[in-house]
Amino acid sequence: MKITKLIISTDSSNYPIYIGSNIISKLSLLLNENSLKFRKCLLVVDKNVPKKFIIKIKKVLRKSEKTIFFFNPSEVNKNIKTVNKILKILLDKNFSRQDSLITIGGGITGDVGGFASSIFKRGIKFINIPTTLLSQVDSSIGGKTGVNSVYGKNLIGSFYQPRLVISDTKFLETLPSRELICGYAEILKHSLIYDKTFFNFLDKNIFKVLSLKSPFIEKAIYKSCKIKKDVVQKDERENNFRKVLNFGHTFAHAFEACMEYSKKLNHGEAVLLGINAAIKFSYKNKFINQREYLLILNHLKYPKLPSDLKNFFTFKDLKKILSFMVTDKKNSSKKINLILLKKIGHPVIDNEYSLNDLRRFLTKELIN
Amino acid sequence: MKITKLIISTDSSNYPIYIGSNIISKLSLLLNENSLKFRKCLLVVDKNVPKKFIIKIKKVLRKSEKTIFFFNPSEVNKNIKTVNKILKILLDKNFSRQDSLITIGGGITGDVGGFASSIFKRGIKFINIPTTLLSQVDSSIGGKTGVNSVYGKNLIGSFYQPRLVISDTKFLETLPSRELICGYAEILKHSLIYDKTFFNFLDKNIFKVLSLKSPFIEKAIYKSCKIKKDVVQKDERENNFRKVLNFGHTFAHAFEACMEYSKKLNHGEAVLLGINAAIKFSYKNKFINQREYLLILNHLKYPKLPSDLKNFFTFKDLKKILSFMVTDKKNSSKKINLILLKKIGHPVIDNEYSLNDLRRFLTKELIN
Repeated sequence: MKITKLIISTDSSNYPIYIGSNIISKLSLLLNENSLKFRKCLLVVDKNVPKKFIIKIKKVLRKSEKTIFFFNPSEVNKNIKTVNKILKILLDKNFSRQDSLITIGGGITGDVGGFASSIFKRGIKFINIPTTLLSQVDSSIGGKTGVNSVYGKNLIGSFYQPRLVISDTKFLETLPSRELICGYAEILKHSLIYDKTFFNFLDKNIFKVLSLKSPFIEKAIYKSCKIKKDVVQKDERENNFRKVLNFGHTFAHAFEACMEYSKKLNHGEAVLLGINAAIKFSYKNKFINQREYLLILNHLKYPKLPSDLKNFFTFKDLKKILSFMVTDKKNSSKKINLILLKKIGHPVIDNEYSLNDLRRFLTKELIN
Repeated sequence: MKITKLIISTDSSNYPIYIGSNIISKLSLLLNENSLKFRKCLLVVDKNVPKKFIIKIKKVLRKSEKTIFFFNPSEVNKNIKTVNKILKILLDKNFSRQDSLITIGGGITGDVGGFASSIFKRGIKFINIPTTLLSQVDSSIGGKTGVNSVYGKNLIGSFYQPRLVISDTKFLETLPSRELICGYAEILKHSLIYDKTFFNFLDKNIFKVLSLKSPFIEKAIYKSCKIKKDVVQKDERENNFRKVLNFGHTFAHAFEACMEYSKKLNHGEAVLLGINAAIKFSYKNKFINQREYLLILNHLKYPKLPSDLKNFFTFKDLKKILSFMVTDKKNSSKKINLILLKKIGHPVIDNEYSLNDLRRFLTKELIN
């Protein structure tokens, strides 16, 4: 069994991410390797995770006293009430700071469980077992935890690092295809903003990655995590560099919001449409050359990926989309922050363009 | 105007503590000196702080948009409901992470406001203006924030450092004498565990310190903060050393708990009785020599300080007191962790003594 390890260094601590197939069976070993001992643990589990995995994890943790909290992860349940439920269990069971909380699920599960871990007795040991491709390649790095409030997403939260992340690709085999696309969008984004060789690898092997072939899927996860880690660490020196992680996201957020976060367009699909728009905007404004532009455009046309904005929106949606792209809605000549691409691996943070420029651009996209 | 500055270094950041008389009038200057800019600020204010100080602070912050949240600081109100009220204001007023929250009050105010600061948008700028002697010499260092739950004290919280602490001795002039004694207990404790010269200074100048004479009170606050800072920083290398800060506190917590946290015995008074007991126990068990023992005992007999256990407890309370000194109540021969004193400035973490030893010791204290 091959296990790949990536160490994430932060201000306050270092922690490893382990990547591999069926590595939850080695959980006990990996805990030992990192001197992670605890008497009690609370498993915060996405109720959609197949039971066989939970049974396996419980078996591996046989030496610990286990409590399970099943949770239906949705943006609606990602709230302070769920955090309070988790805290109540930890208090009821008299957990100490030496005990641990283990999340098994996607990004929402990790965000909620991580936040509860951070505020219980000023911080309990937090172990994250992400089960979706998106959470394995994205939210497992950066230490962001939190919940939504009625005022908006992720408004209550903290920065808190896990002690260990286990990204087991076996979980991915049980995911619907659209969930995989969702994670793939971030993998592709990471390649485009940072690593042309990795993009070439993805371009050649997209079929193998999306059908979870080993070692292609492991490599895609590893490289993606490595890039996010590099960007986040570089940001400590180069202020603002982290913003390049928003490549495609200014558009994507507007698309999602315009659809009122409907299931018709999930986050990853919106990101792919956003990358598509950002690439086209980069090309039309003479940032990226034609050869690379066509290369990316061709990649985005891979059958399973959504690529045509017109399949989701009509010209009637334009005003609404634009309204979500600016915070200052009164001033349409005001410049907007956009992440554009000069070359594959070379993003630029640009604020030369205004809402009017975007209106012209999106009008063509939605009409032609 | 003399302003003393002490820099506290933590894993994640450094921040200054400013100590002096009437220094809130220089708040604006001190904010600038630390490049602390914000458009909006929420003042979380202990409702007992005299209005004149709040008027002055509002005036100094005239360039910022200010909101005030008055709060009745008690252990009962130190809960998640109060935190939610604060978060609701921050959300209602659309605070960003660049804005700030300023606490003006004692330890409870700082703990609650600091905790809210830490979880709003993963951390807003937190400025602490402690107004009691206890909070100026103790809770302004260490980054502990939090609230109580029905299960116990400080069970929900985080580690979060302020960006700036302003310890203005003008606030202290409005405090009742018992509040001052409360802070003095920690100052004295810090001298005993770390710095004989400082103890000698206190022994010579206790009257001047307790009557808030300048520069004696400033020096007492500064030295006390410096010792806590040194102990906390030393703990990063010497594991467990921080425990010496609990000198007198094993006894003190039992005394407080036995009194059911009644106002008849406040925390500082309990700490003074606890120091008294720890010193006597140290002497009876041949840790500290007679000369130093008598020196400390004499200091503790200063008129305003509570020193005789029999003024608060009778022999009937013994069983109850002892029950709060151990977690494992079934095993009375089990050793108990105690901080004892070998010399002034030289504490030892000891676990040679059992509940039976303590019973014998306290029996004599309560009967003789």
